[in-house]
Amino acid sequence: MKKRVITFGEVMMRLSTPGFARFTQAQSLQVLYAGSEANVAVSLRYFGCDTAHVTRFPSNDLGIAATQTLQRHGVDTRHILYGDERMGVYFLENGAMQRSSRIIYDRFDSAFAHIAPGSVDWDSILKDAAWFHWTGITPAISQGAATVCREALVSARKHGVKISGDINYRRNLWQYGKTARDIMPELISLTDYIVAGTTDLENCLGIGGGSLEESSRAAMKQYPNIQKVSCTYRESISSSHNKIQAVIWDGKVTLTSKEYDMTHIVDRVGGGDAFMAGLIYGWLTGMTDQQTVEFAAAATTLKHSIEGDVNTTSVQEVEALMRGENIGKLLR
Amino acid sequence: MKKRVITFGEVMMRLSTPGFARFTQAQSLQVLYAGSEANVAVSLRYFGCDTAHVTRFPSNDLGIAATQTLQRHGVDTRHILYGDERMGVYFLENGAMQRSSRIIYDRFDSAFAHIAPGSVDWDSILKDAAWFHWTGITPAISQGAATVCREALVSARKHGVKISGDINYRRNLWQYGKTARDIMPELISLTDYIVAGTTDLENCLGIGGGSLEESSRAAMKQYPNIQKVSCTYRESISSSHNKIQAVIWDGKVTLTSKEYDMTHIVDRVGGGDAFMAGLIYGWLTGMTDQQTVEFAAAATTLKHSIEGDVNTTSVQEVEALMRGENIGKLLR
Amino acid sequence: MKKRVITFGEVMMRLSTPGFARFTQAQSLQVLYAGSEANVAVSLRYFGCDTAHVTRFPSNDLGIAATQTLQRHGVDTRHILYGDERMGVYFLENGAMQRSSRIIYDRFDSAFAHIAPGSVDWDSILKDAAWFHWTGITPAISQGAATVCREALVSARKHGVKISGDINYRRNLWQYGKTARDIMPELISLTDYIVAGTTDLENCLGIGGGSLEESSRAAMKQYPNIQKVSCTYRESISSSHNKIQAVIWDGKVTLTSKEYDMTHIVDRVGGGDAFMAGLIYGWLTGMTDQQTVEFAAAATTLKHSIEGDVNTTSVQEVEALMRGENIGKLLR
Amino acid sequence: MKKRVITFGEVMMRLSTPGFARFTQAQSLQVLYAGSEANVAVSLRYFGCDTAHVTRFPSNDLGIAATQTLQRHGVDTRHILYGDERMGVYFLENGAMQRSSRIIYDRFDSAFAHIAPGSVDWDSILKDAAWFHWTGITPAISQGAATVCREALVSARKHGVKISGDINYRRNLWQYGKTARDIMPELISLTDYIVAGTTDLENCLGIGGGSLEESSRAAMKQYPNIQKVSCTYRESISSSHNKIQAVIWDGKVTLTSKEYDMTHIVDRVGGGDAFMAGLIYGWLTGMTDQQTVEFAAAATTLKHSIEGDVNTTSVQEVEALMRGENIGKLLR
Amino acid sequence: MKKRVITFGEVMMRLSTPGFARFTQAQSLQVLYAGSEANVAVSLRYFGCDTAHVTRFPSNDLGIAATQTLQRHGVDTRHILYGDERMGVYFLENGAMQRSSRIIYDRFDSAFAHIAPGSVDWDSILKDAAWFHWTGITPAISQGAATVCREALVSARKHGVKISGDINYRRNLWQYGKTARDIMPELISLTDYIVAGTTDLENCLGIGGGSLEESSRAAMKQYPNIQKVSCTYRESISSSHNKIQAVIWDGKVTLTSKEYDMTHIVDRVGGGDAFMAGLIYGWLTGMTDQQTVEFAAAATTLKHSIEGDVNTTSVQEVEALMRGENIGKLLR
Amino acid sequence: MKKRVITFGEVMMRLSTPGFARFTQAQSLQVLYAGSEANVAVSLRYFGCDTAHVTRFPSNDLGIAATQTLQRHGVDTRHILYGDERMGVYFLENGAMQRSSRIIYDRFDSAFAHIAPGSVDWDSILKDAAWFHWTGITPAISQGAATVCREALVSARKHGVKISGDINYRRNLWQYGKTARDIMPELISLTDYIVAGTTDLENCLGIGGGSLEESSRAAMKQYPNIQKVSCTYRESISSSHNKIQAVIWDGKVTLTSKEYDMTHIVDRVGGGDAFMAGLIYGWLTGMTDQQTVEFAAAATTLKHSIEGDVNTTSVQEVEALMRGENIGKLLR
Repeated sequence: MKKRVITFGEVMMRLSTPGFARFTQAQSLQVLYAGSEANVAVSLRYFGCDTAHVTRFPSNDLGIAATQTLQRHGVDTRHILYGDERMGVYFLENGAMQRSSRIIYDRFDSAFAHIAPGSVDWDSILKDAAWFHWTGITPAISQGAATVCREALVSARKHGVKISGDINYRRNLWQYGKTARDIMPELISLTDYIVAGTTDLENCLGIGGGSLEESSRAAMKQYPNIQKVSCTYRESISSSHNKIQAVIWDGKVTLTSKEYDMTHIVDRVGGGDAFMAGLIYGWLTGMTDQQTVEFAAAATTLKHSIEGDVNTTSVQEVEALMRGENIGKLLR
Repeated sequence: MKKRVITFGEVMMRLSTPGFARFTQAQSLQVLYAGSEANVAVSLRYFGCDTAHVTRFPSNDLGIAATQTLQRHGVDTRHILYGDERMGVYFLENGAMQRSSRIIYDRFDSAFAHIAPGSVDWDSILKDAAWFHWTGITPAISQGAATVCREALVSARKHGVKISGDINYRRNLWQYGKTARDIMPELISLTDYIVAGTTDLENCLGIGGGSLEESSRAAMKQYPNIQKVSCTYRESISSSHNKIQAVIWDGKVTLTSKEYDMTHIVDRVGGGDAFMAGLIYGWLTGMTDQQTVEFAAAATTLKHSIEGDVNTTSVQEVEALMRGENIGKLLR
Repeated sequence: MKKRVITFGEVMMRLSTPGFARFTQAQSLQVLYAGSEANVAVSLRYFGCDTAHVTRFPSNDLGIAATQTLQRHGVDTRHILYGDERMGVYFLENGAMQRSSRIIYDRFDSAFAHIAPGSVDWDSILKDAAWFHWTGITPAISQGAATVCREALVSARKHGVKISGDINYRRNLWQYGKTARDIMPELISLTDYIVAGTTDLENCLGIGGGSLEESSRAAMKQYPNIQKVSCTYRESISSSHNKIQAVIWDGKVTLTSKEYDMTHIVDRVGGGDAFMAGLIYGWLTGMTDQQTVEFAAAATTLKHSIEGDVNTTSVQEVEALMRGENIGKLLR
Repeated sequence: MKKRVITFGEVMMRLSTPGFARFTQAQSLQVLYAGSEANVAVSLRYFGCDTAHVTRFPSNDLGIAATQTLQRHGVDTRHILYGDERMGVYFLENGAMQRSSRIIYDRFDSAFAHIAPGSVDWDSILKDAAWFHWTGITPAISQGAATVCREALVSARKHGVKISGDINYRRNLWQYGKTARDIMPELISLTDYIVAGTTDLENCLGIGGGSLEESSRAAMKQYPNIQKVSCTYRESISSSHNKIQAVIWDGKVTLTSKEYDMTHIVDRVGGGDAFMAGLIYGWLTGMTDQQTVEFAAAATTLKHSIEGDVNTTSVQEVEALMRGENIGKLLR
Repeated sequence: MKKRVITFGEVMMRLSTPGFARFTQAQSLQVLYAGSEANVAVSLRYFGCDTAHVTRFPSNDLGIAATQTLQRHGVDTRHILYGDERMGVYFLENGAMQRSSRIIYDRFDSAFAHIAPGSVDWDSILKDAAWFHWTGITPAISQGAATVCREALVSARKHGVKISGDINYRRNLWQYGKTARDIMPELISLTDYIVAGTTDLENCLGIGGGSLEESSRAAMKQYPNIQKVSCTYRESISSSHNKIQAVIWDGKVTLTSKEYDMTHIVDRVGGGDAFMAGLIYGWLTGMTDQQTVEFAAAATTLKHSIEGDVNTTSVQEVEALMRGENIGKLLR
Repeated sequence: MKKRVITFGEVMMRLSTPGFARFTQAQSLQVLYAGSEANVAVSLRYFGCDTAHVTRFPSNDLGIAATQTLQRHGVDTRHILYGDERMGVYFLENGAMQRSSRIIYDRFDSAFAHIAPGSVDWDSILKDAAWFHWTGITPAISQGAATVCREALVSARKHGVKISGDINYRRNLWQYGKTARDIMPELISLTDYIVAGTTDLENCLGIGGGSLEESSRAAMKQYPNIQKVSCTYRESISSSHNKIQAVIWDGKVTLTSKEYDMTHIVDRVGGGDAFMAGLIYGWLTGMTDQQTVEFAAAATTLKHSIEGDVNTTSVQEVEALMRGENIGKLLR
């Protein structure tokens, strides 16, 4: 095995309506604890990697429950901080057919938003790591989160740790007085592998107006640290039926995966994180970019068949799908 | 806005098997209270209208629970009557694939069936109303229900209230000694807007043998009060997959909506009531017939994605679907 | 009618994850008791046949619960034996989309595996029967089970009882020192109607290399007792979507059923048993082979819409599907 | 043993709120099928007796589900009649602490109420039976039910079958034009063993004003067929906590059981039926009256710890409680 | 009757663990919307009063769901304000035996906390009211809430509306820079009927050191507007077993209720609100203080048997308990 | 803190009926993974200790799920072995009132039973540990388990690790050809702290006939390594109500804890393990024996209020109960 992957970001309580109930119908809510970066750590753990997640939780039973969720999946939780504030929450209503899924966020003023610069000992955490992963959600939450993220990137580069960033621009965040354009360029300039669509690049770097290939080429020119740009194309026929395909731009060519037809989606939340984990796994284990994009596309497809935010499939399951094996079988 | 809409009809306890369980498998049943006309009132309430429903319940906790269901949705329940008899019940088994859904009715001798002529003060209820809605289920239940329905129509016309009727012929009802042909013509002769298919027109008015356009033209000739005839065409590929399209015949031309492909139906009961509410909303708010038929078709489509009998979508959600926006998206 | 059908084989506790939960997610498991041969008996009971199942259970409350499950469906349980060992168990994880369903068996050393030669009084059980059914699972479990199965076949032939066998080769069983090739030929030589695919015939009889028609012809030549060979062809587009079609080879021609598109599968376990019951019902009641293959194909299709291992549809429901009636309707 | 016991009476669908939910809170209802006399048959089946229940169900899936419930417990259902009308229903709200449990009946005009005189072939049913059991609920439902009950009693006496009757006067029934005083005396005059309290004797026979012993003595004098009068005394401290004690008056002395303290009642419905089954079991198997009253008191106590209407404890469990063994133990 | 009662205060989302699960065990949470003052409005509605609740909700689906909860119970919601912020939340873990129940509050920065002075038109709301009720929770939340509360009290006095206040001192609130001693005296000086224990009086008014009678006497002297002081005494034997008794101090004597033994508590949250509603009902309808204290004590006792925060018992049920009727009975 | 505690023993899948359902009623079963020794490790983890559990699981998803359960609680799972055989299972039916709880074991031939001598590297596991805990269940399972247990004890003594053993004699185990008297004396001779009752000492050491004090004194004389003997006395009033008290014999005097009245037991399984963890915590952290016996008694009491096999209370919660604080309170 398998070098160690460190992820950093907020983990929230996810409260989702059961079945296809709407918010106004639900008499109970399913509880999970999840976050984009932690979802990547969990998926990589099921792929056999050693992973640790860094975050900050309230020091109450909700913080303990969130910690235990990560522990159950085998993610190292020893570097998690605890403090006074609240657990971020998001409410999820599952769509069906032409009815959209909806999320109500209630994450302001969370324990994570109050993370203090200097409070994480990144050097000791990263010195044995092979990979560090962050997303554009984190610097959008608070100045503290943005600063701690930058601290991590600086430390990672110092220790020769590869860095991936899922740009993931969220318009509704960024409410602490800074914009993505203020903060993201520096963070991206410290990152090796990015997942981004054209609107992400436009909103965060001001690079826009063209195709993904054109924007990626421009981004790489401006930020020569960037090794690869990747993203997925999703065709949303309905809440229950999507098609998905992935690409990697390696600076020269666009490598394209097989397209998957996802006809009976169980849970689409976390699909992007499963994709990200697939990319990291491919790059970390020395797959070619073509293998990597196929692995990541198959991984995100399988995620859509799984309840909750995290992809719990193994490398064997992802590879079987890549080979078209076992699909729809009853494995005894 | 919004003018006040009054609906009249029986509300039953709906007891449905969980998931796809058959009647012989179920160890529990989901409980709702619903009825065709009340479903219209509820949907119109979510569209922003002021609505009141008139019915008669047993004066026990089941009657209270049914009343509270309407109240929760914001429907005015002050005109509901209470009496000695039982709550009508229907049992629902959800089909899947090629297996049909099934309903067992147990509604005879209900508190509603015992409603007495003269017991509803229609003039005071209708004097401030803009619209009155009834269905062909009501006069099929009992002589009392038929008479009270006629009283409502007479009062509504007196007060200049627009009237819609969903003809909805049910062969298994009409057991109190009268037939649809005895009772329905007079009620239809008092109605402005009807929803009916060719078999409805044949069974209730004896007008048949042709296309819907031909039958509608003949009905309008015989009953010049009728302004519009509307209905939906449903293609039932399976219990899980239907297509739906709607038409309005305005006396001159047939206006046809977009066809919707409903590939993962959650609950089809109440689809017709959502359509009816869409029509009333369009006509009440001055949409053109083309806008109205599109609005109603989109409304019934969304209903099929919602658990239970009632459409809880807003005007904004229906209009987004009409524009093809947000379909299958995760709205954050 | 109705002639009596006797089935023989293990009934296990089925523990399945709720909804689409994976094994590692489930905090509860759904409990059923089912087995291939008993599933056939239950389905035939819903078709109106008189059926009895012979098996051996542990003499504890799990054995009682399993017995009560069969009794509930109306299967005669008076010939069941009870003893000291454990209940066989299987764990089921339902797949979705491209993710496969999975079964973990825990059936070794069960009360059924310990059934003793001579312990079943087959002559008294079979003397009034019209049909006996077994599967290739039974002789794969233990020497005792294989021997008791042979005793049943010998007795059935003595009493002029028709015999069907679902060959159903399972590589993971056959762990008691004998192979399918050691045991199955004799059992097949005592059987009139078999369900088998080409791999079954190859693994059990060593007849292979060709089409089903070629293999069936060869099998019939070698085992002239065989009257018919039948099987289904399943196209697995995903765990949620299969197509199915059935054939009967009558020694001269291959009769083929309509193909059914199963787009929203509820539970595919027991599909083969529903098919088998359909075949037996057709042959037992004097249908032509073409009618029989259509009846069995429609029966297995409906099974896929039903939760659990058993097909609880009636002859009327199966025949309606054969005629293309009521599909996707709401039957009131 | 085992002699055969025949019971006769209505079986209803029981719809109970989950946990301690009130009627106005419940979004689902638990479904069982139960009735006083059938509950006796089920309990006796768990005591090892051969039992058959006679009733009349609607010929729909609810009637099938009710039949399957009895079959599951091993009760012979071959003598059940099916017809056109509805399934009787009762709704149950579980009380707690000082809040009472409540039942809403909806049983009028049921399939059972429409049972026709002469429709049951009592002679063939009773000729091999050892015991027949009826309750005072049956003749209160309809003239038809009362007449068929009398037919059963006449046939039972002709065949030398012992007869028990649980008088169980229900003021809310008796709505078909006859009173208990019109009908019950003749039925009691055909009965050997009765369960009755002083108010039952007063309402049905007009014998009142004194203690149970005095009333029983008077009843036996007037109806010399009566061998024993038995009943329970229940002290209701709260819905969660009752005490219970039983007596048998044998014509000369009152035999009294141990008193049981029921501190955490799970479900008290069917407590009386479990008691009745205990009495029948004692008398049928030749216990002394003292043994019988102790057995029946222990049986009804255990019933209060079991969800649903029926006592599923075995003779071994009842006898262990009589001896004070295993109470509160964890039996491994 | 019935005079109209107005209540004012925050309504939160209550998320409680199912059964006896701890926070770290729960995979789902039960959802209710409740708040101390709204609970009083709901209970009074079940007692037959006309009630309206004034609060402020976020203008999202959670705010709608909370509104619908009040509507379902029949509380007038027309005066509710909607705005931008979040829904206050509290998490509840049910204790059992010696293990305490626990609440984690997450209510800061809620839509209610942001209520603006002058935003409620108290004069039009209160001009037809008979009673206004507030609690000490409201002024502890924010300066805005405290100010709007004072506005209500001033308006109520102007319109001759009787005022009750449940002092309910909560140490963990009061975080906006003011203390209870800064704010509460003025509010209490505008109130007629208060519920308070000795610690409440000490923390809010600085009156302490003696018995409740002594403190009440002192409070009345200082605040001559106070007509009555009432509270309950709770003996907490365990989470499952409490005893409760109530008193009213009328300025001269202490009137004491019967003590109730609550041996199997279902849900103790909202017990104080049920008591408050009982007091208001008694005083509003002209009961004597002794009748009132008995009514309120019986009301709070029944609440402890009901799931959720609100007492849904009727006057008839409370009065039956006061008379000792029906306790532990099965009411048919 | 805290020194490291190592536990060793089988972890089984626990399948329990929901609520108070009997085995024959359950349509679903709750799933947990638990075992006596692992329960001790989990409880100590909640007390703040560093713990690792050693066992052997099947290398399938059930083994992974069991591992994840321990990980969730923070127990170190790195030393767990995986192999070919099955997961041991136990089925639990919760009793109520006078009805006993019952367990059906299905644990033979499990992966743990097949653990091979020498397969655990005890020296590396124990060299940094402070405490090792085993129970008498382990050597009863198989010769391999007994041998590996002895290997652990020998290694623990070599490394100066304190050893506790819960003797826990189980008559139904010991089926591999050895008796407790053959195996246990040597294991006990290597142990410092034992939990045992008089029957345990008699069955395992042949020391009997007297009081616990007499037997303990004799045991200590014969096995001078034993430092303390401890046990609980449980009075089983019913399945819902027990009393419990604990003692420690320190070789000279018997120290007795407070008696706790457990009136509304939620789940009594694992009560002994919670007690054991309490003892270890006391001894490990230097409490006096009196403090230790009080801590352990309070810990086991709290366990009875918690669903599942493990005590998740903190040291603070246990100490609050010891001081009689917070009992039955609603902690906000």
